[in-house]
Amino acid sequence: MSTIVFPDHHSAVADAETLKKAFHGWGTDEKAVIGVLGRRNALQRKLIRQAYEELYEEDLVKRLESELSGDFEKAMYRWILDPEDREAVLLNVAIKKKPAVDYRTIIEISSISSPDELLAIKRAYQKRYNRSVEEDLAQHSSGDLRKLLVGVVGTYRYNGEAINAKLANSEAACLHNAIQNKAFSDEEVIRIITTRSKLQIQATLNKYKDDYSSSITKHLKVEPSSDYVVALHTTIRCITDHQKYYEKVIREALRLAGTDEDSVTRVIVSRAEKDLEGIKDVYLKRNSHSLEQAITKETSGHYKAFLLTLLGKQD
Amino acid sequence: MSTIVFPDHHSAVADAETLKKAFHGWGTDEKAVIGVLGRRNALQRKLIRQAYEELYEEDLVKRLESELSGDFEKAMYRWILDPEDREAVLLNVAIKKKPAVDYRTIIEISSISSPDELLAIKRAYQKRYNRSVEEDLAQHSSGDLRKLLVGVVGTYRYNGEAINAKLANSEAACLHNAIQNKAFSDEEVIRIITTRSKLQIQATLNKYKDDYSSSITKHLKVEPSSDYVVALHTTIRCITDHQKYYEKVIREALRLAGTDEDSVTRVIVSRAEKDLEGIKDVYLKRNSHSLEQAITKETSGHYKAFLLTLLGKQD
Repeated sequence: MSTIVFPDHHSAVADAETLKKAFHGWGTDEKAVIGVLGRRNALQRKLIRQAYEELYEEDLVKRLESELSGDFEKAMYRWILDPEDREAVLLNVAIKKKPAVDYRTIIEISSISSPDELLAIKRAYQKRYNRSVEEDLAQHSSGDLRKLLVGVVGTYRYNGEAINAKLANSEAACLHNAIQNKAFSDEEVIRIITTRSKLQIQATLNKYKDDYSSSITKHLKVEPSSDYVVALHTTIRCITDHQKYYEKVIREALRLAGTDEDSVTRVIVSRAEKDLEGIKDVYLKRNSHSLEQAITKETSGHYKAFLLTLLGKQD
Repeated sequence: MSTIVFPDHHSAVADAETLKKAFHGWGTDEKAVIGVLGRRNALQRKLIRQAYEELYEEDLVKRLESELSGDFEKAMYRWILDPEDREAVLLNVAIKKKPAVDYRTIIEISSISSPDELLAIKRAYQKRYNRSVEEDLAQHSSGDLRKLLVGVVGTYRYNGEAINAKLANSEAACLHNAIQNKAFSDEEVIRIITTRSKLQIQATLNKYKDDYSSSITKHLKVEPSSDYVVALHTTIRCITDHQKYYEKVIREALRLAGTDEDSVTRVIVSRAEKDLEGIKDVYLKRNSHSLEQAITKETSGHYKAFLLTLLGKQD
């Protein structure tokens, strides 16, 4: 469930005018910007961008970039874009990351999105960069990690409800066999995880747990680990319980000495219109304090105010 | 260009009635069936199927299966389906082929279709089989061939016009280097061929030819060859000049002692509404006799009559 209550009716023109006023003169009225944009859904934001462009012959996204700064600017830039366009930008940033690709974000976006959402993101990526996600990703990664990443991004997974129990059985055994032999990057492991439907993988991993008295994710906690094994583990978590996965991402990001704002922003902005309410519940259960409390403690300024608005705080 | 001149106006109901009459009594009036269905485009055939179902509460596809036989039945079954559904069936047959996948057909469909056509085929596949093409293909293939096939099927290629000349330069060198070292299944070779846009690959291969005085396809004619190398060769031909590729498929299929009707049918049925006219031209230039003449000589009966109708023959 979304954390934000969006108005049923709003005037894109009035919203554009409010924003223009907030930009006026020296300094910016950030509170007004948050008050408008933080409470509009993706379609409403798109209409505001269009109205603003028509009224003032100016690109709202660019204007926001020049008016805002720091983590707040970055979060607002992510939020103001169409969702598929935002995810395309996040993917591109993750692929271009130095010294190595940010595989967590890549896996997160490609494994948690539905097949048709992922397709829309791929189309947005091509429109923006004149290249496919697949070619950029394949170019910037290598080895086993590449096989896994190109697989999860490339496959247009079956999204229906049909499950093959016999297959779940045999592939659970296949996974277990590989893992027992520490052949984590066995081609069959990659094949199963990157091509089967999420429900089928779920069924296979349930069978795994039944037959071998432990979850596969526990069996993947090995030392020494590698980027590939962590990536495989991440993929499985994203497929089987993405809210729990997100809770951990945000918990660890907030726990760091400097706070990992990029991760905090990514989870809150990407999920606010989807299931952030559920992630908040998981967070509360796990940490005995609310996500709002943690955000209040660990962030500051307009950035904090914006995140709290996206988390559903009313004035 | 399509070989068939479709009527601008037709009555789906009248066509359905003609078909019902053709099925009536003992024996079938195949000529009437060909006269109607052989001269209707995909949308018109769909409307005829619907009209037939409404009028007679009977599935036209099933009725045709019971009325017709042999290669004619098979060809009509391919033709009567929606194009993306037909290609999905062809893909499934190719993947399930024993003792090994029919990689030519898989490469042909995935490399010659546009990215959005391929996507429509993948959706039709899922609707029909409750699984993704990717998972079936990955399950039924292995080794280097699997990497190549899953790559060409999986990638949603960029289909725009942007070409990166510098990249074409470096990747031409990369391909040449691998091929000189007989590392045909080098990961970089597979990466380039399976993920780059078709125009980008074209540019890379032109550069290859300029820099190394021979086409890559010539360099791939090696002894001993392997399924993988032939598949790589096929992929490149499908991407760079698919009409020439189809000409060869049909030429070799007709040249065989028994005639490979499946291949003849596949090319003619799949391309009749697209560019069969161009394939006919290439065939004529290469063989000094027309494709119609070859079909007339090598096939017979209603099958022959149907193929000739799809090739544009008027009564």
